[in-house]
Amino acid sequence: MSISVTKRSEDYAKWYTDVVQKAEMADYGPVKGTMVIRPYGFALWENIRAIADRMFKETGHVNAYFPMFIPESYMHKEAEHVEGFAPECAVVTHGGGKKLDEPLYIRPTSETIIWSMYKKWINSYRDLPLLINQWVNVVRWEMRTRLFLRTTEFLWQEGHTAHASFEEAEIETKKIIEIYRVLAEDYMAMPVYVGKKTDAEKFAGAVHTYSIEAMMGDMKALQSGTSHNLGQNFAKAFDVTFLSRENKPEYVYATSWGVSTRLVGGVIMTHGDDKGLILPPKIAPYQIVIVPIWRTDEQKVLLMEEVAKIKLQFGREDIRSLVDDNDQVSAGWKFNQWEMKGVPLRMEIGPKDLEKNQVVLVRRDTGEKHFVAVENLFSMVKHLLGDIQNNMFQRALKFRNDNTHEVDNYTDFKRIIESGGFVKAFWAGDGKMEAKIQEETKATIRCIPFKQSQSGTCFYTGKPADTYAIFGKSY
Amino acid sequence: MSISVTKRSEDYAKWYTDVVQKAEMADYGPVKGTMVIRPYGFALWENIRAIADRMFKETGHVNAYFPMFIPESYMHKEAEHVEGFAPECAVVTHGGGKKLDEPLYIRPTSETIIWSMYKKWINSYRDLPLLINQWVNVVRWEMRTRLFLRTTEFLWQEGHTAHASFEEAEIETKKIIEIYRVLAEDYMAMPVYVGKKTDAEKFAGAVHTYSIEAMMGDMKALQSGTSHNLGQNFAKAFDVTFLSRENKPEYVYATSWGVSTRLVGGVIMTHGDDKGLILPPKIAPYQIVIVPIWRTDEQKVLLMEEVAKIKLQFGREDIRSLVDDNDQVSAGWKFNQWEMKGVPLRMEIGPKDLEKNQVVLVRRDTGEKHFVAVENLFSMVKHLLGDIQNNMFQRALKFRNDNTHEVDNYTDFKRIIESGGFVKAFWAGDGKMEAKIQEETKATIRCIPFKQSQSGTCFYTGKPADTYAIFGKSY
Repeated sequence: MSISVTKRSEDYAKWYTDVVQKAEMADYGPVKGTMVIRPYGFALWENIRAIADRMFKETGHVNAYFPMFIPESYMHKEAEHVEGFAPECAVVTHGGGKKLDEPLYIRPTSETIIWSMYKKWINSYRDLPLLINQWVNVVRWEMRTRLFLRTTEFLWQEGHTAHASFEEAEIETKKIIEIYRVLAEDYMAMPVYVGKKTDAEKFAGAVHTYSIEAMMGDMKALQSGTSHNLGQNFAKAFDVTFLSRENKPEYVYATSWGVSTRLVGGVIMTHGDDKGLILPPKIAPYQIVIVPIWRTDEQKVLLMEEVAKIKLQFGREDIRSLVDDNDQVSAGWKFNQWEMKGVPLRMEIGPKDLEKNQVVLVRRDTGEKHFVAVENLFSMVKHLLGDIQNNMFQRALKFRNDNTHEVDNYTDFKRIIESGGFVKAFWAGDGKMEAKIQEETKATIRCIPFKQSQSGTCFYTGKPADTYAIFGKSY
Repeated sequence: MSISVTKRSEDYAKWYTDVVQKAEMADYGPVKGTMVIRPYGFALWENIRAIADRMFKETGHVNAYFPMFIPESYMHKEAEHVEGFAPECAVVTHGGGKKLDEPLYIRPTSETIIWSMYKKWINSYRDLPLLINQWVNVVRWEMRTRLFLRTTEFLWQEGHTAHASFEEAEIETKKIIEIYRVLAEDYMAMPVYVGKKTDAEKFAGAVHTYSIEAMMGDMKALQSGTSHNLGQNFAKAFDVTFLSRENKPEYVYATSWGVSTRLVGGVIMTHGDDKGLILPPKIAPYQIVIVPIWRTDEQKVLLMEEVAKIKLQFGREDIRSLVDDNDQVSAGWKFNQWEMKGVPLRMEIGPKDLEKNQVVLVRRDTGEKHFVAVENLFSMVKHLLGDIQNNMFQRALKFRNDNTHEVDNYTDFKRIIESGGFVKAFWAGDGKMEAKIQEETKATIRCIPFKQSQSGTCFYTGKPADTYAIFGKSY
């Protein structure tokens, strides 16, 4: 298998698919729209998942598992929800060799089934808040497959919480979007705009939706995580009430929120280059790959002894390392392969290095080479991994900021959207205008950022505007 | 909610369901046959999963994710497999609002879809072995639901490995059944017989199957984990060949193996008593519950200060603890509740204990009380947790051994099976005889244990027998 990929500048979509497959992140499943997450891609997902799971637990959430089969009638209980989701569901009509009395929908998201259970579990304010999350597969029918980004079945977490007041639910909604921001920026090195969705873009059944929005290497937006304040919509649909402290029955307040394997696509497209993946050290399956280089068997024995020591020391220092001692391929081929797989650091060691008691470290993000004495190796590796993590974030942030343009008129807006990038502009329009802009330019409002400093004039209506919005074409 | 349960001696099945629900381990889902795993039950599963996952990774396995949709045609490629599984599948006939050209089966197990992918990935002996595992949901249609034991959808791990020889596959199959034994005995404190299934009981599509078999509190057997040597059956069905070292195309050898959320049922039925669950410390969500007991607010302030210190120290010592400072219920009610939930140790502390600088520790397994000076608390808790783990295993082992009877004739066999327990007997019969015995007694051969010391005379045929078998009624 050749280990070069299409250049990003030639065909970005092709580059993406090439990288995903050549780095052995994922493959197409036999059923149209489905994806196999291969071990290397799954290891990345496991690391992302472990970080998010820890943050959820630190903020009082617990995991559970709800069935994936939803009775058809449940899907129809919340009006906006059914309209948003029913058309993209997979439907089970037969089970155990018989036609079912009622068809079962495979969860596209689990609000309905979870709120049907919450009705059983919630009676009084003492049962609240209920802070449950689950890591599961969901199905939303897709015809145009894009590995990690758009597949019929994907993996995600979905949090579903129940509260005694709208304010409490709102605090939860914001707490989660902050967790998502930290996950994206501090671990995945992927800068995001954090803000509110417009009514046109919010979740089907939500009062409002917050999201994190990242810019990919082709300057398109990736909605990377959403957190919804559902108000009392699902409690009303499923008749879930609680006795308040004042002993009054009241509908429960809800939130839901999720991130998915789409994040893996986000990592690839935020950092990848024409040599393949570049993985942030904090989430990389392997942080350093060790490539010993020998000619004779005698050299190999000496080298492998030293390499084994170094590998063990990496383990003790919680550095994830891998030794590539395959003798079927050349060192050059290995370098290319591990560059394709985006391992943050490569360590080379040959007989001459061994004599000098040194190794060579090569950074994946910059290509920089360092000759390092073995005695300084571990502190140097830690330093470099930190520096790579930081550099990757700063580089992505600069790219995002350089390609986010402020405009004050629709002509400039169209020109910038056409040439690629985000638009940051004051906005006082409505949903119809959003639809019109989308029709004309394919751009949508990604979010109204939380961080707002001043007011101005709407670029589209010319009216005074309290807030600016981020526009972009999106995945 | 009352926190007493049906006595085991009255109605074991009812006792089980009561405990599962009152300990908030699981609940029935809205679709018949489905189960909701509640946070407390899921936390137990997460601990079991983490231990198994670590052992898989330590032995070179990696995780991945394969789609749950299997084209109908794939299910039919391996003759025994389709016969075994197709009748219990759930079938998707509609997706994205349209009828599908080919119905999709939801995985009852993933051999077929995984081997369709292995065909793409395996070319040469250099690609072998391939050691992949996944943690996923599967569906097998069930009409008689038993929470954790028998549900339409359940969670499990399924390992699927590919090898260059039958011997290598055999080593893998045995390695895994040993991992399962360690998981069951050393972590879940659940003694198991480890052995081979007869042809009648093996997996649909396997050359042979190994299993671990545990005895539940009602003396019935729970098949708790299986490991299959699949020979070349699936490689032939999916035409997966590799070029050997001798450059000859050869069919690949396969194994598959799994444990499921059924293990949670095993823990409950191995250890539970009429007060509820008893959880082995190594897998318990909380190893110790701290119940402070006060009358006045002043006392509460003093107590909670000390409790906070102790709780922090538990955290530093990697002891999983929980403080129950709920002031809506009595201490007695709390004691009952945490006994129902099976927390291995309870710590009580009141104003008088505070004065004397001591606490009270109560063991869930024996009810024993210990007055312990705070300065000795942490070493004492560690000691007791170890002792509880050990005692639970020894107690279960004694129960299993006391209720496993050697017989040398069918009359005794029938009497023992009738009154409950396992039969250990020399066996030289065939599949037809097994079927006949099952028809007459409901007992099956659980396994032919690996550990065999001598030969004897078959209790059923009177012929010389090389091996003894373990018989029992099973879940």
